[in-house]
Amino acid sequence: MKSAQHASLISRLVEVVGSDHVLTADEAISAHLADWRGRYRGAAICVVRPASTAEVSAVVRACAQVGVAMVPQGGNTSLCGAATPAPEGDAVLISLSRLRRVRAIDPANNTMTVEAGCVLQTLQEAAAQAGRLFPLSLAAEGSCQIGGNLSTNAGGVQVLRYGNTRELTLGLEVVLPSGEIWDGLRGLRKDNTGYDLKQLFIGAEGTLGIISAAVVKLFPLPRAIATAWLAIASPTQAVRLLGDLQARFGALLTACELVSDLALGLVRKHFPGSQASFSASPWYLLVELSGGDDDQSLRQTLEAFLGEALESGTVSDAVVAQSGEQARRLWALRENIGEAQKLEGVSIKHDVSVPISRIPEFVERAGRELAQSFPEIRIVAFGHIGDGNLHYNQSKSQAGENAVFIAAQPAVNRIVYDLVHELGGSISAEHGIGQLKRDELLRYKSPLEIEMMRAIKRTLDPQGLMNPGKVL
Amino acid sequence: MKSAQHASLISRLVEVVGSDHVLTADEAISAHLADWRGRYRGAAICVVRPASTAEVSAVVRACAQVGVAMVPQGGNTSLCGAATPAPEGDAVLISLSRLRRVRAIDPANNTMTVEAGCVLQTLQEAAAQAGRLFPLSLAAEGSCQIGGNLSTNAGGVQVLRYGNTRELTLGLEVVLPSGEIWDGLRGLRKDNTGYDLKQLFIGAEGTLGIISAAVVKLFPLPRAIATAWLAIASPTQAVRLLGDLQARFGALLTACELVSDLALGLVRKHFPGSQASFSASPWYLLVELSGGDDDQSLRQTLEAFLGEALESGTVSDAVVAQSGEQARRLWALRENIGEAQKLEGVSIKHDVSVPISRIPEFVERAGRELAQSFPEIRIVAFGHIGDGNLHYNQSKSQAGENAVFIAAQPAVNRIVYDLVHELGGSISAEHGIGQLKRDELLRYKSPLEIEMMRAIKRTLDPQGLMNPGKVL
Repeated sequence: MKSAQHASLISRLVEVVGSDHVLTADEAISAHLADWRGRYRGAAICVVRPASTAEVSAVVRACAQVGVAMVPQGGNTSLCGAATPAPEGDAVLISLSRLRRVRAIDPANNTMTVEAGCVLQTLQEAAAQAGRLFPLSLAAEGSCQIGGNLSTNAGGVQVLRYGNTRELTLGLEVVLPSGEIWDGLRGLRKDNTGYDLKQLFIGAEGTLGIISAAVVKLFPLPRAIATAWLAIASPTQAVRLLGDLQARFGALLTACELVSDLALGLVRKHFPGSQASFSASPWYLLVELSGGDDDQSLRQTLEAFLGEALESGTVSDAVVAQSGEQARRLWALRENIGEAQKLEGVSIKHDVSVPISRIPEFVERAGRELAQSFPEIRIVAFGHIGDGNLHYNQSKSQAGENAVFIAAQPAVNRIVYDLVHELGGSISAEHGIGQLKRDELLRYKSPLEIEMMRAIKRTLDPQGLMNPGKVL
Repeated sequence: MKSAQHASLISRLVEVVGSDHVLTADEAISAHLADWRGRYRGAAICVVRPASTAEVSAVVRACAQVGVAMVPQGGNTSLCGAATPAPEGDAVLISLSRLRRVRAIDPANNTMTVEAGCVLQTLQEAAAQAGRLFPLSLAAEGSCQIGGNLSTNAGGVQVLRYGNTRELTLGLEVVLPSGEIWDGLRGLRKDNTGYDLKQLFIGAEGTLGIISAAVVKLFPLPRAIATAWLAIASPTQAVRLLGDLQARFGALLTACELVSDLALGLVRKHFPGSQASFSASPWYLLVELSGGDDDQSLRQTLEAFLGEALESGTVSDAVVAQSGEQARRLWALRENIGEAQKLEGVSIKHDVSVPISRIPEFVERAGRELAQSFPEIRIVAFGHIGDGNLHYNQSKSQAGENAVFIAAQPAVNRIVYDLVHELGGSISAEHGIGQLKRDELLRYKSPLEIEMMRAIKRTLDPQGLMNPGKVL
């Protein structure tokens, strides 16, 4: 019975997008059914690849008519299993990859209208070709798609200056769970005409509808960039230095990344050519300024600031990149941490935020409590200190011990998340909830807030068909 | 029957807040029942003034239990009648003025936790005392309250750099229509744990609940400020100059205000001491840079830029303020436009936005079409060109003719709003909808979007008690 219904739905979908774009063979759909970290594997009735908003609408309408669930997927780089269907295989996976047009660039308005399947890096490049900056930047930018960035409110390394994806978004086009198309594609910086509906879909991980296009903000290309790697004693020094940098440079400070020595050590081990011409230190900061007049004078201003910081002892060593190539190498030390960890083996990962002022307390107390419960634990800590956002990951160095440790994840999570909660923080700063943190969400959100979220979900998706089993 | 019920409700409210804070006498409540522009006058069962979130909650619970509507009110500076109750007098007006504590300032986190009744200017001052900038700034700042700023997503003169109130808000505390208190008071720059519920209440004009407190962003105090008044030929030149300023100064550009010669003329007429030591021109730009190293070098950089602009002819005259006092006088030319118009007499006002690239076309076509339909019309145009936001107001100079003209407001609105709509703009850029633009909202929003808004309203306020007759 069920398979007859599925066959009929597949026929209908073939009518909409053509037989080349309804995939059912295992080898064709396999890569869509597992997540990047390899934690989840699901199944699907088929993978359907619409090429336009109208086709997305027709696909959604067809599924909704027969009450079949839908899982939207972009570049499939979620770190929480948000784009992986459930193992039951009773949903249609909708890949947005073919919606990849840049519909318009308006340089005088500093906006760009883009479709959901555009790869982030191609958008950065399209903006640059128009003499503008699209500042969203994160490790997966070569394969993640803007629809996924929007649906997870992606963060990255320039949030300090430019904000999260939410702050970069002026308008959305969304295919609602009914298949209706909501055209909210406005390119306005001020529009106070009622409830700001786009905010509901940004960060909803596809549970309220499918974002098919967006109007995003562009910025002037910075005339100059200066990059430095600083050796510092502690997170307390890092917070102090962040405040000094902000007081001195204001909006010129576009990145401030904290890296622990252990995190750097993994990069050095797995990427042997890594540049590291600075003295060893328990902690480091990667700092980037952009704006100003020209590279040389911006670099000199930064060097002058660092000279004072070295003298006063807030910084113990500093390297200022003297070329774009040197800057890229310093950035690689930071960007390769994720990959180095993956090469090193499985670890328990946390993507948390606390008020910036509480970062030192968090690092100190979480480290102490974890070490008490799990001797010889290795803690890899790094992240966007300017946003109060730490990637805080744990493992053990011996493979056998590590397997036992990984099995203790609930106890590790409890220590980390209880402390995050106590400090007024978030258990998911930029990665979202997906499948990974649904139970944790129920633990740390108030019942009132959960009920408000559920009420919104029921209102916009009364059949409960959009990306079931994610977030709520 | 009704008045017995009202008397019983009043008794209950007196139990909650004390008899001093439940006002019923005409002379005590009169000022609460009319709007600042004098367009609307309503009535109310009483004005109740809770002093804490708990009291707001108890007040809302008492009203909800007997199905009585509520109108929240802050500084009562709405330009759309959003805080004025209906004439029927069957609602309770809840004044938030007594919730005026700054609960916390966290300089290292660059946040401030404030109650709804805090006057905007006192928040600017509190931030400055902590060595920080709270950048929200608008003409009513001496009397408007942050709860109203949040509920209307207020804009103002620094949106170009710092965003609207929405972008300045990290967390909210809201008393829901049931009286339950939602504690969303987070001070996090990254928090991707489900739907971002605070976004619903920001800009909802009190129709979904009552904002009682918020966590807002602070910024480093700029080390230097430079202000200039430029004479320019046209809006086309203004948009070009804006692009040049952004390319040259990036985030240092914090304000870019367009002023028409007619707008400036009204200020000169009604504020005779106004400084105006520059040559007359059809249009002007007020430009402010903030950041950089020190006042003198920032001023010199701006002067160098303007020297080139004068030479190339994009600017026909320029005055750079040589002191804070001179800068204040230049700002007064812009800030006094609203008051000068009020002194001049009644006018038809529009607060619209279009993509920045369409500003010249809007000004040209709207001016032409209005002059065709209404000979000798006076158009006062000014606003935040960096946000695509124009205040676009019309009147006639003779009082008698003006009265006839004002009666033709629907026809004037149609010309202006049809064009705004055609150009992809907004009929309310920063003032909101209130009572003033409800019908226009229905005309220009798609039925699908209106229905989504109504569904959200029904979900969060099923009894329809919160600020009825506003927005929807």
